[in-house]
Parts: sequence; C-alpha cells; structure tokens
Amino acid sequence: MSRFEVSRRIRRYDYVSAGVDQERKDRAIEESAALIATTYGAGVIPNPGGFAGLYAPGRYVDPVLVATTDGVGTKLKLANLLGKHDTVGIDLVAMSVNDLIVEGADPLFFLDYIAMGRIDPQKVKVIISGIVEGCRIAACALLGGETAEMPGMYAADEYDLVGFALGAVERDRIVRGTKIVPGDAIIGIASSGVHSNGYSLVRKIFVEAKAMPLDARPPQLEGRTLGEVLMEPTTIYAGAIRSLIGRFRPEDEVKGIAHVTGAGIPGNLPRVLPEGVGARIRVGSWPVPPVFEIIQSAGRVEEAEMFRVFNMGIGMILIAPHALAAEMVEHLGREGLRAHVIGTTIEGPREVEFLRPPST
Amino acid sequence: MSRFEVSRRIRRYDYVSAGVDQERKDRAIEESAALIATTYGAGVIPNPGGFAGLYAPGRYVDPVLVATTDGVGTKLKLANLLGKHDTVGIDLVAMSVNDLIVEGADPLFFLDYIAMGRIDPQKVKVIISGIVEGCRIAACALLGGETAEMPGMYAADEYDLVGFALGAVERDRIVRGTKIVPGDAIIGIASSGVHSNGYSLVRKIFVEAKAMPLDARPPQLEGRTLGEVLMEPTTIYAGAIRSLIGRFRPEDEVKGIAHVTGAGIPGNLPRVLPEGVGARIRVGSWPVPPVFEIIQSAGRVEEAEMFRVFNMGIGMILIAPHALAAEMVEHLGREGLRAHVIGTTIEGPREVEFLRPPST
Repeated sequence: MSRFEVSRRIRRYDYVSAGVDQERKDRAIEESAALIATTYGAGVIPNPGGFAGLYAPGRYVDPVLVATTDGVGTKLKLANLLGKHDTVGIDLVAMSVNDLIVEGADPLFFLDYIAMGRIDPQKVKVIISGIVEGCRIAACALLGGETAEMPGMYAADEYDLVGFALGAVERDRIVRGTKIVPGDAIIGIASSGVHSNGYSLVRKIFVEAKAMPLDARPPQLEGRTLGEVLMEPTTIYAGAIRSLIGRFRPEDEVKGIAHVTGAGIPGNLPRVLPEGVGARIRVGSWPVPPVFEIIQSAGRVEEAEMFRVFNMGIGMILIAPHALAAEMVEHLGREGLRAHVIGTTIEGPREVEFLRPPST
Repeated sequence: MSRFEVSRRIRRYDYVSAGVDQERKDRAIEESAALIATTYGAGVIPNPGGFAGLYAPGRYVDPVLVATTDGVGTKLKLANLLGKHDTVGIDLVAMSVNDLIVEGADPLFFLDYIAMGRIDPQKVKVIISGIVEGCRIAACALLGGETAEMPGMYAADEYDLVGFALGAVERDRIVRGTKIVPGDAIIGIASSGVHSNGYSLVRKIFVEAKAMPLDARPPQLEGRTLGEVLMEPTTIYAGAIRSLIGRFRPEDEVKGIAHVTGAGIPGNLPRVLPEGVGARIRVGSWPVPPVFEIIQSAGRVEEAEMFRVFNMGIGMILIAPHALAAEMVEHLGREGLRAHVIGTTIEGPREVEFLRPPST
C-alpha cells in the first residue's frame, strides 16, 4: 500500500491496451507525492517504496488509539455533475476527523482510497489536492492511500472516496459524556452548509425533479449559485475543539461532543447523553443558513424531516456547564467559528426535544 | 463512525420511500455486531454508540504505527457473478494485513467500508462474516466500519469493499531490507491461488471471451470448478510470519519481506531490496498452481506477462541467510504454509532475473 504500489497495481490493465497512458498516471501520482509530503509532521517515518505507512505517535503516557472511516456519500454525484473535484477531499477528511475529535483525540494521520471506473490522472491529482488541504486544516499527515481502477464497477468518469483517520488521546482524557447532568449548556457550532449528508434528497429535488437549476442565483445566496453553495466543503472542527479542550481545565469541562451527520441533531446528540438526560433545543437560537430554506421550499420538505436529514446550520455540538458557555462561544469565535448556546440538557429520556418560537 | 451510526445514516433514504425495510437493516447490523465482537481482544475499549473505535495498544516501548489501505479490486465482480460473498471479506483483510506484516508489524485492528447501490442486509451480513473470519485469522479486532448506500453510484446489486489495517512495531524491529546482501536466500511462501490481483485479466478471458465456463471442472482442478478455484480466498500470512520473526533471534534474521500483489514478483520483490542488490529466481523451484496454467493457456498469455500480472503461486517472499533457510521453511510448514527456497540475492541492479529450466 502506497501511492507507488498503486501505480504498479494499475499496470495490470496495460495488457488490455485500454488506452491508458501509464506515464501520465505515474507523473500525476508523483506530482501528488510532493504535495502529500507537505502534510508530514514529525511523526511520519519515511518509507519510500514501502508496503505501508509508518508513524511514530510519540509523547503519550497511556494512549488510546481512535479510528474512524467514512465516505462522502452521494455528494460525489453532484461533484461529478458540476465538474468540481477540488474540495470533496476536504469533505472526506472532515467526515472522519470530525468523528475522531468528538472522542477528544488528536488527529494523527489519514489514509484515502480513490476508486474510479477509469483513472483520470488530472482528476486524481485535483481530488488529492483537496485531501491534502483537508489534512492541512486538520493538522494530520496524509500517510498513505490507494488509487484503484475498477472498470465495470464504476462508470468511467465516476469515483468513490473513502477515508480513514487515526487519532490518539490519553486514556483519562477521552470525552465520554458521562459527566453530563441536566442543566448543562448545549453549544452549537455553525456548519458551513449541507456538509456531506442529505445529498440523496438534494439530488432528488434539484437534479431529478429539477426544482431549481444548479446555476440559479437565488437572492438569499447573495450572488453565489445554488451549485456552489451545495458544494461548500464540510467544516473541519479539529483545531478549534482541540484548543478549546486544552484551554478549559479541568479538561473535562467540555463534557460531551457530538458530530451532526446523517440523522441530524435528533440522531446524533443523544449518542453522547447519559441515561436519564435529554436535550431541549431552542429552534431560532441560531441562524439557519439560507440553503436549507431553499431546499425546504423547493422540495416541500416538512420541517421535522429537514432536521432529521440535515444539520440545519449546526455541524458540531458541545455540552458544558452553563457558567462557561459564554467564554467557550467567545473562544470558538476567536478560532473563526460561530457558536451559539442552542439549548439545555434536561432530565428525561435520551432524546432531543425541539422548542419552536411562536409560529409566524 | 460505527455500524450503528451507519444504520442511522441510511435512514435519510426513508423519505424517498425506497421500499427499504429499515427494521431488517437494523437487525442485520445488530446481528453482525455480536459476530464482530468475537474479534475483540484485550485492546478494544467498548464505545457503544460512539463516533469512533477505541483501542489501547498497550505494551510497546517505542512503538511505530503501521497503516495500510486496500480493496479487493474486480474480484468483487466475479463474486457477484457467482453469488459468492462469504470469503471476499477474507481477501479484504488479507490485502491490508499482508502489507502490514512485511514491515514487521503486529496487526492490531481493522476497519471496513462497504458501499452498495442498494443495501441488501443479508448480503451485508455475509460479507461481514467473511471480514470477521479474516480478522480472526489475522488475530486483529474489527474495530469499526461504514456501510454506505449509494444509489446511482453503484448498480443496485453491486458493491465495493475497502479495508484499513493498523499495526504496531517497535521502532528497532521494523523489517526494512537494509541488511540484505548478495547471497541471501529468497524464500517463497505458497499462495492459495490467484489471491486478489489480476482479476481484470481473469474476467476478460473467462467472462468476456468465455474461454471456459466458470462451472467447468478441468481435470487439473481435481473436481473443483474453475469459479470455486478463482474465488479461493487470499492467504493471510500474519500469524506464521509473526511467529517466524519471533523465533529467529536476533529478529533481524528475517531481513526483508515482500507481499506479492499487483505486478507480481518482479514488481514487488525489488521494493525490499537495497541499492546494488538484485534477485535471481529459479522458475521451477516451486509448484505453480494449476489455475495459472489454465489462465495462461485459455487466454494465450505469455509467460512473462503471467509473472507480471499474477503471483504464480508465491504470495509472500522472505529474505534470510541461506544457513537459516531450511529451518525457516520447516517452521513455516509447521504453521501450515508451504515454503520453498526459490532463489538467491545477487550483486546488481534492484531487479528480478528469472532463470528458467531448459525449455520443454
């Protein structure tokens, strides 16, 4: 396993004279190798031509390794439709790394898998550039990857992406949610938009039902096209949350963290709540990005369904004592993230209850 | 990230009333969860409902983490054609874990990604049972996974599999090949067959060109069908090689290890050789499994091409002093693996030279 093995692996298709230009492929992969090396920190042990990536984690006393894998889902179909492949790599890194940090882990490294019906070296290079960008934002090394050509499995111009992230955390610093009690603050951190969940519904509304063209510029989007806004890359919260955890001591003042992915706030927030603690969320306590209003009205989607499918503007949730909430919101602001106190934990079943403002 | 998150992720498709039975899916995933738990060793830290897998590596003094990712390639197309999904999971684990152990690492844990056009819970369960079996053979934990439904990306009944393996090795025990000198023995360990490389050619010959039906029973296969032999799962060498490295002290008596994957012996053996050392392999010093003769004659493939595309019966290669070779071969035999001294390292460029017996 390594980019270089990959290029060899691909060679097996040469015999079919598939018209693939091996030189171009090798060049694309070698050019990416230099870019990939820009993500290497002190941990990476060079292993040229090796079968695996090597990484020395260093400085932990009683480390627990934290591992995640995820893909980008059908946002890739939209990427292909729009011919925009430079940011799906950021989405890929975000989906795995945001799952790592909810456990309190430092992201150490990332590996990617790119499968295409037919290798397009330029497209591979652009996709990798996005993965590299994501790894830089998350401050983790892109330690390895596999680029597989799978004729007959994927349409020639289509591809799937899979990511794997490894992190580490001291055993006594794992964020577990066990100290959450009724009356804690629920802090929502803004998403950049739809992130990487709900694209099946998005495509159904805009691509299949053609409710609005992707190059439309509805006034709420302030000059941007619908397609641009839908392709906005997923926010990577790693740096801000690591710095937040490090700032508030004892570190367990950040009592619980939830990554809002598929199934939205009601599907993900309860995962971090202990038995007997529920969540009361005040709808209206944060601004819902206009793209969700557009989806909702174009697709005539019920509000409850919107909350079950999309993040609705909240990509990550923290739970902390109310007394610290304002300071945490401010700290996140300095890290470039908009955060809001969006609710309170309550006594009750491990569920989310939405309080809605008086209807208009 | 976890099987349980996955099932939530899938829920987003319910709104399209796609006719998917959520109950059945949840049940399939829960049933697999019990099976997956059978792979857990002491390292796994339970994290029910968590966003990531947690693993305490324990006992290393100066650990280096070793990470790999790989897929199974188009062997999956053959699996679908034959309706045989219970062993591709073994192939998946093998492809990644065999890459780990060439670095001298202990496999710690594995994560899988299964993407389907439309989730077939029964098929998912059968695939996971193979992954679990592979993890048991490799003695690593199946720490997590993602099952993604990607309508429009994959044909409804097709799927792709991706694996990630993480291992660890003491820094001073990484097998690097740097101590290899001309005159060392090259030990080949038998493969179980075609393993997971070359299936594009296999499919071209038998599926597209229909050179021989997959249910044929040519006499060389001693009663088994061609399809059965082609689906034979990849050998997982982890246990045997770990015990071999542990037995011969100083441990660096096993000077180099190469996993024979795409590009065969000539493409993979040189990766472990130092500058100025080549390899001379004696063709005929090990038995080439009959399936390769069948492929070669059915597809009229040149012998040199066969060696570039397939493992030709050697799935893993060790380099060690000649004085220890016989004892190593014997030790591997006790571990259930057939091994042969298949050549010698020589002074020269980092290439493989094949010596052929006088032609028949």
